[in-house]
Amino acid sequence: MSAEEILNELKDNVVKRAPGNAVITDVEFEGSEVVIYAKNPELFSNNFIKELAKDFRKRIAVRPDPSVLLEPDIAKERILRIVPDDAEVINCIFDANTGEVIIESKKPGLVIGKEGSTLEDIKKEIQWAPKPVRAPPIPSDTIKAIRSTMYRERADVKDILRRIGRRIHRDVKLRDYCWIRTSFLGGSREVGRTCLYHQTPESRIMVDCGINVGMDDEKAFPHFDAPEFSIDEIDAVVVTHAHLDHCGFIPGLFRYGYDGPVYCTKPTRDLMTLLQKDYIDIAEKEGKQVPYTSRDVKNAIKHTIPLDYGVTTDIAPAVKLTLHNAGHILGSAIAHCHIGDGLYNVAYTGDIKFEASRLLEPAVCQFPRLETLIMESTYGGYDDVLPERDETEKELLRVISETIARGGKVILPVFGIGRAQELMLVLEEGYNQGLFNAPVFLDGMIWEATAIHTAYPEYLSKNMRNRIFHEGDNPFLSEVFKKVKDTKDRRNVIGRDEPCIILATSGMLTGGPSVEYFKTLADDEKNAIVFVGYQSEGTLGRKIQKGWKEIPLMGKNGKTRAIKVKLSVHTLEGFSGHCDRKQLIKYLRKLKPIPDRILTIHGEASKCIDLASTAYKLFKKETKSPMNLDSVRLR
Amino acid sequence: MSAEEILNELKDNVVKRAPGNAVITDVEFEGSEVVIYAKNPELFSNNFIKELAKDFRKRIAVRPDPSVLLEPDIAKERILRIVPDDAEVINCIFDANTGEVIIESKKPGLVIGKEGSTLEDIKKEIQWAPKPVRAPPIPSDTIKAIRSTMYRERADVKDILRRIGRRIHRDVKLRDYCWIRTSFLGGSREVGRTCLYHQTPESRIMVDCGINVGMDDEKAFPHFDAPEFSIDEIDAVVVTHAHLDHCGFIPGLFRYGYDGPVYCTKPTRDLMTLLQKDYIDIAEKEGKQVPYTSRDVKNAIKHTIPLDYGVTTDIAPAVKLTLHNAGHILGSAIAHCHIGDGLYNVAYTGDIKFEASRLLEPAVCQFPRLETLIMESTYGGYDDVLPERDETEKELLRVISETIARGGKVILPVFGIGRAQELMLVLEEGYNQGLFNAPVFLDGMIWEATAIHTAYPEYLSKNMRNRIFHEGDNPFLSEVFKKVKDTKDRRNVIGRDEPCIILATSGMLTGGPSVEYFKTLADDEKNAIVFVGYQSEGTLGRKIQKGWKEIPLMGKNGKTRAIKVKLSVHTLEGFSGHCDRKQLIKYLRKLKPIPDRILTIHGEASKCIDLASTAYKLFKKETKSPMNLDSVRLR
Repeated sequence: MSAEEILNELKDNVVKRAPGNAVITDVEFEGSEVVIYAKNPELFSNNFIKELAKDFRKRIAVRPDPSVLLEPDIAKERILRIVPDDAEVINCIFDANTGEVIIESKKPGLVIGKEGSTLEDIKKEIQWAPKPVRAPPIPSDTIKAIRSTMYRERADVKDILRRIGRRIHRDVKLRDYCWIRTSFLGGSREVGRTCLYHQTPESRIMVDCGINVGMDDEKAFPHFDAPEFSIDEIDAVVVTHAHLDHCGFIPGLFRYGYDGPVYCTKPTRDLMTLLQKDYIDIAEKEGKQVPYTSRDVKNAIKHTIPLDYGVTTDIAPAVKLTLHNAGHILGSAIAHCHIGDGLYNVAYTGDIKFEASRLLEPAVCQFPRLETLIMESTYGGYDDVLPERDETEKELLRVISETIARGGKVILPVFGIGRAQELMLVLEEGYNQGLFNAPVFLDGMIWEATAIHTAYPEYLSKNMRNRIFHEGDNPFLSEVFKKVKDTKDRRNVIGRDEPCIILATSGMLTGGPSVEYFKTLADDEKNAIVFVGYQSEGTLGRKIQKGWKEIPLMGKNGKTRAIKVKLSVHTLEGFSGHCDRKQLIKYLRKLKPIPDRILTIHGEASKCIDLASTAYKLFKKETKSPMNLDSVRLR
Repeated sequence: MSAEEILNELKDNVVKRAPGNAVITDVEFEGSEVVIYAKNPELFSNNFIKELAKDFRKRIAVRPDPSVLLEPDIAKERILRIVPDDAEVINCIFDANTGEVIIESKKPGLVIGKEGSTLEDIKKEIQWAPKPVRAPPIPSDTIKAIRSTMYRERADVKDILRRIGRRIHRDVKLRDYCWIRTSFLGGSREVGRTCLYHQTPESRIMVDCGINVGMDDEKAFPHFDAPEFSIDEIDAVVVTHAHLDHCGFIPGLFRYGYDGPVYCTKPTRDLMTLLQKDYIDIAEKEGKQVPYTSRDVKNAIKHTIPLDYGVTTDIAPAVKLTLHNAGHILGSAIAHCHIGDGLYNVAYTGDIKFEASRLLEPAVCQFPRLETLIMESTYGGYDDVLPERDETEKELLRVISETIARGGKVILPVFGIGRAQELMLVLEEGYNQGLFNAPVFLDGMIWEATAIHTAYPEYLSKNMRNRIFHEGDNPFLSEVFKKVKDTKDRRNVIGRDEPCIILATSGMLTGGPSVEYFKTLADDEKNAIVFVGYQSEGTLGRKIQKGWKEIPLMGKNGKTRAIKVKLSVHTLEGFSGHCDRKQLIKYLRKLKPIPDRILTIHGEASKCIDLASTAYKLFKKETKSPMNLDSVRLR
C-alpha cells in the first residue's frame, strides 16, 4: 500500500470510530505521527487516542483545526486577562503546527489554577492548548530566534513534516530475509567527524555527522566518498548531542541536497544551532572555507523533529528510534534504533558520562533489547584513569584561592557547552562556602549556552531541578557571575586591579576571548591559567600546557610578537564529560542486556582497541574496533 | 588530462620517435594496451617498443594497418602454398583485432622452418603475424564458436576495446590520501555465489560473480542490493576460474547493463562459456527462471580480455592486475590487484590446490608484494584432513577391478571440469598397467571439457606437457575412452553385457546422464557407484551416500517410482581440487611475503573461522572471516 492508501484507510477508520458529533477536518501524516484535526478536539478522550494508537501501531495526535484557533495576538490578550497578575506571565509562544501555546510565567501554578480550572478557562476561550512553564531565568537569543523561525515559516515546516510522514510510511516490501549493517564514515579510531550510517535493504539512517575542527583538508569531514553513501537515499539523520564533532556537518547535509528529518532532543537542537553559527563566524573571521551558511543552519532547524528521552518513534520503514540520556552534556542522547519491529536493536552511546555530575544524571545503561552496542572510547586506553571528581574540585578551588590571595587573575579556558556550566556550579559553591571572594567573569558563548540550560530544567539532574524549583535557588543566577558583554567590558576585566576568575572560550585557545586574556595576562607571575579539558597537539593551549616560556603570536597589526609566559600553569583532568576507563568498564558491567556484539569507536586507535579487548574479556562476545570506511554486517 | 589528450600526446611522441620511413596510420587505446597501427610494422624493433613501454608506463603493441592485410581466404591459400604439406596444417584462425593468424598444424616445427625462415616468408607474403601452434587433438565446439563470434563481430569487439581503453585512462585526480576496501557480496562463510568488490575513491573492481545452483531464492545470487554496489560504476570484472560458483552470474551482469571488460585466462573464458550455456540448458529443462540468455553469454565473451599468468595489466586508474596459477582447474587463477602503482597489493586465491596434481602445477605462493590475502577455506576446518592422493587412487582402482571382476559396472558421477580429467588420467594409467580391462565411457560435458583442456597445453603441468609434446603421448586420446554421443549410445552402454566404467555428469546426481545411469544400474548388487566429490545436503548423491535403500524418483511419465539401491556405494575424498587443511596451512607457511592481513572466505562459517584463527596463530597478524555484506577497509 502507498502512503496515500494507508492514510485513506486511517481516515475512514478514524471517522467511523470518532464520537458522533466530532467534526474531523483532516487526518495527516506529520513526521511519524498521525495527526487528526478536528473543530472540537476536546471530544477525543485520551483513552480513545490510546486505543487508536494501539490498533494502528502509530503515534496519534489530535489537534484543533486552525480555523477554530484565535489569532495569536487576541489569544495572548485573553490569556493575560484570565491569568492573575501575580503569575507574572512573561511570554506566550504559539506553535501553529501543534495548536499549543507555551505560557511562560514566574509562577506557573497560578496559570494552572485550582485543579486546573484556570487552564480550562483559557482553553475554552482561545482553543489553543495551553502549556504552562516556568519562565527561564536567563533569556536565550538562540531559542528566541528558533521559535521565531518556526512560527514565521510554519507553513513550510508543516509541508516538511507531511513529506517526511509520507516517506516514513512509504510502500516497501519488508522481507523476512533482511540484513542490517553499519558503515563507519568518520570518528572511528579517531576523535572528530563522527558519522555512522545504518543500512537495511529498505532504509538508510545516519547517526551524527560531525566535523574535525582541527583539520583543514578532507579529513575534517566524514567519508561522503564512501560508495554506499548517497545523500538522496538518507531516510533520517539522528544527532546524539550538540558538540561539533557530532553535529558540525548537519547544515552541510542540507546544503548538499538532504531534505529529510533530523531527530534529536530540543536542547541538542538549540545548542547545536548556537555552535554551528559560532563555527561559521569563527571560520569566516579566520578566512577559512565554511561548508555551509546560516541559511543552511536555519533549514536544518526547520527539518528538526525534537524527541524527548524514552519516546519511541518511527523514523523509516521498519525502523524506530528511542533517545536515552547519555549524561555527557545537556540533551545528549544514546541513539537506540529498533529495526524490523524491534527484532534487532543497535544502540550508539554517543559520548557518555556514567556518574552523576552536578548538572546531569548518569547515562542510561538498561535497554529492553540490545543486540549491538556501539560505544565511545575517548578514555578507553589501559592507562586512562582520571582523578576523582571531588579531588579535582578541591584542587581547582585551592589554585583559585592561592592565586587570588596573591592578587592574581585566573584564566579558565573552557569549551562553552557542558564544562563551562559544570565549572560554574563548582565556583558558585566555592564562593558560597567562602573559599574565595572574587567575581567570575563569563566571556564567549558561555552566557548564551547557560541560558539554554536554564530553559530546559527537565533535562537537568534531580538535584538541580530540586534546587531550582523547590528551593527557588538557581545557581546560575548567583551574584558571583558577571557577563562580559563586549570588548570594552573585556578590557575592563583585563585592566582591573582586583583579582578575578575568567571563564572564556575557546577551550584550547584556538581563537576567541580566551586567547585575548592569555595574551595580556601571561606576562605576570601572579596570574594563573588552569586547563580543565583536553588540549590537542598543535594548539596554543597544548604549547602552554607543555611549559613553553615564550610563544610567538600574531598581533592585530599582522606582526608576530613573542608572548612571555610567566603565569602559573595548571592542568586538572578530573572534569571530563566522558567516562574514564573505570567508568567505561563499570558501564559495561551494568549494561543490560548483554549485547551480542560491541563495537568501539571515538578514540585514538589504541584506546578503541584496548576497550574492545576489555569488552571481549568481560563478555566473550564479538567485539571489534572498526576503521573508518569499514562496514559491519550486524545481522 | 582526458584520455583523448593523453592519447594525442602519445601519438605525437610515437610519430616523433618512430623510424623515419615508418607509416603510422593510427595510435589507439585498446583495453589497457596502446596499439600503434603502421603500414610497415616490421620497422618497429622489439627494443623500440620496450623503451616506449618503459617511458609511457603502458603496454605497447604494434600492428599492421588493416589495409595491408591480405583477405583471410587469400592469405590462407598463400600459407598453405608456403608451408610444406608434411606440416599437416589443420586450421588458420585470423584475429582481425590483433592482425595475427594462428596456424594450427600437426608439426608446427615445419611451419616455423629453419631458423624461422618459413615464418618470415609467410609474414612478408600476407602481412598477418603468423603464430604456429600444435593442432589440438580433440576439436572443441566451444572454442570454435567463440573464435567465430570474435571474428564475425570484430568491429564491435574493437569498439568495445577502445571504449574500455578510454575508461581505464580517464581523467581522475589520484590523491596521496587514498583508501582501499573490499566488500563481500557473496561466498563469505558459505560456498556458492562468490563475489568480491574492491573499491577505491576512483574505481570499482569486481572479482568473481558466482551463483549458488543449490538455492532457488535470492540467496542464489550475490548481494547486488549492497548499497555500495552500482552496476554502472564497475570498472572491471575479474574471474578466477570457470566454476559456476565463481562465474555463473557473469552474463547476468551484462543483462543488467554492465558493458565493461572481463579479465580471465583463455581457458577460463572457454570453460565458463561451456558451463554457462549448460546452466541455461538445464535450468530451462527444469522450468526454472534463468537470469540471462545465451545472447548475454555471447556479450560476455565479446567483452572478455584474456590474460596469461604473470602478465600485469592496467584495469582501472591506478589499479593493475596479475593472474597467477591457482592449481585448482585448468586456467584457474589467483587474482592479484596492485593498487596505487603497486603501493597496496591484495590477492584473492580463488580456489586453490597446493600440490601438483596429474593435470596442473601447484598454486603460486610467492608474490613481489602482498598486503592483504583473501583465501578460500573450503577444507579449513580443524578436522578437514583428506586422505593422501596416492592412497585414494589405489582405492579407486581396487574398487574398479573388484567390480569388473564380478562382472559389474562402475558409475563415477563427476563434475565435468577438472575432476573428470584428473580421473581420466588415473584410469588411463590403471588401464595401461593392466589393473583393469574394460572401456571407460564419457557422458555429459566431459568430452567437450577435455577438448578445451587439450587446446591449452601451456596451462597444464610440466609432466603433462612433456608427455604430450616430447613423447607424443596424449593420455586423453587413449583407446580406453569412449565418447557417449547420444541417448542411443547411452542405452547401449547401460544394456551391454560386459563390465565397464562410466564417467558421467552431474557430480551430485542433481540431473544429467549420471542420474539416468543410476536409475537403471542401482538395482544390481554387481554394480558400484563411487563418489569422488562433495555431495551437498538434499541432493540425490547425498541420499545414496547416506545409504538409503529405496529412493523415490520421478519417472518420465511424471509418476514417482521407488528405485531400489542394491549396488555397492563408495566415497573417496582424496580427489579434491581444493587444498585440504594440511595444504592450506602449508600454503600459509610457504607464503611470501607474509601479508599484513588475511581474510578467509569460501567455506562453511566454522571452517572460515577455524582457518582465520590458525592464520592468526601462525603470523600474529590481523585475520578475519568476514560475513557477506561486510566491507573491510584494507588501507
